[in-house]
Amino acid sequence: MQNGKFITLEGIDGAGKSTHLAWLEDYLCSKGVKVVVTREPGGTAVGEQLRALLLDQRHTMHAETEALLMFAARREHLDKIILPAIQRGDWVVSDRFSDASFAYQGCGRGVAWEKLVLLEQWVQEDFYPDLTVYIDVPVMLGRERVNSVKAADRFESETDAFFDRVRTGYLERVRQFPQRMQILDGSLPLDEVRAALAGVMEHFWLNQALHEK
Amino acid sequence: MQNGKFITLEGIDGAGKSTHLAWLEDYLCSKGVKVVVTREPGGTAVGEQLRALLLDQRHTMHAETEALLMFAARREHLDKIILPAIQRGDWVVSDRFSDASFAYQGCGRGVAWEKLVLLEQWVQEDFYPDLTVYIDVPVMLGRERVNSVKAADRFESETDAFFDRVRTGYLERVRQFPQRMQILDGSLPLDEVRAALAGVMEHFWLNQALHEK
Repeated sequence: MQNGKFITLEGIDGAGKSTHLAWLEDYLCSKGVKVVVTREPGGTAVGEQLRALLLDQRHTMHAETEALLMFAARREHLDKIILPAIQRGDWVVSDRFSDASFAYQGCGRGVAWEKLVLLEQWVQEDFYPDLTVYIDVPVMLGRERVNSVKAADRFESETDAFFDRVRTGYLERVRQFPQRMQILDGSLPLDEVRAALAGVMEHFWLNQALHEK
Repeated sequence: MQNGKFITLEGIDGAGKSTHLAWLEDYLCSKGVKVVVTREPGGTAVGEQLRALLLDQRHTMHAETEALLMFAARREHLDKIILPAIQRGDWVVSDRFSDASFAYQGCGRGVAWEKLVLLEQWVQEDFYPDLTVYIDVPVMLGRERVNSVKAADRFESETDAFFDRVRTGYLERVRQFPQRMQILDGSLPLDEVRAALAGVMEHFWLNQALHEK
């Protein structure tokens, strides 16, 4: 049997990930593949407990502690959810993965980029998503969208300067992985972003079908 | 002002760490130093939450997840407790530190030794305890002592074979760090172990006093 594929969505809160993730799930189901939708941090019993700890406004922690916890949750996520699903031929779509650690813990919190590269190799070895869609939005727009929906968690309550650094981190990862990562302009109207995502997915779908012939 | 010192106690459960740790605290106080007693995993707000997660019988997790969580708790422990205390001249005594990760997650659970060396460097750089006292006991003796006191946690409920591997891991660390690590025979009567510990401490105390003259 063919292995499944691993697709990740990245972006700051308010970029529109949840909306586009729901569409993406429908799109892949319509292609006849079985889809597993998951998220980071989280996705497993241990991971969701770590998510609660990481997002809890009452906790402060060293930036490197935060990075280690993110990668601990990721190690579990790979072992329990992502790798088994791919091996049985399912497609996995995750709301965030390791690019987020470079953006948030790296550029956002100031953990050295090289140290994150070491952790990424420690946890993932040579495993990367097959496709990553990064939805880029200006910080103010993301913030407006989030504020209208719910109370801020420990990340969402960060400053605009923090999210500007996070965005810079994401853009640096896109520059480093131009094959794997596709950037969408999330400030466009929803139907235009969706059309762009549909284009990316159709291209990816045809390409993988071609290679697996 | 002189920096304080960092002393760790290591051994499997039932080795007698708690008893000897209490004596060690009194000993150091009698020398006129301020003592901070702490433990791993734990020692900080985030660390104690991780300890609860790590010891909880209901959770299973990948061995590498466990190792990453131990080092995440350690990063926090260093930042919030150990390094500030040492810098203000206090002496820190910790019930376990990174040698335990090599013994438990390395030899016990099978995480590659080299991967633990990488994590240790990532978290500690060149920071090590000034002195580590490893109390060595046969697995059966440790188990008898523990079973008589409380219900087993996720580690304590492991097999004898697991603890034999843990013990091998500790002995390997003692072999690698003969200067820093002192081994005591914890199967001897309590007063004999205490006398041996007193000897180790008196030697360490005189030695550090000599070097700081």
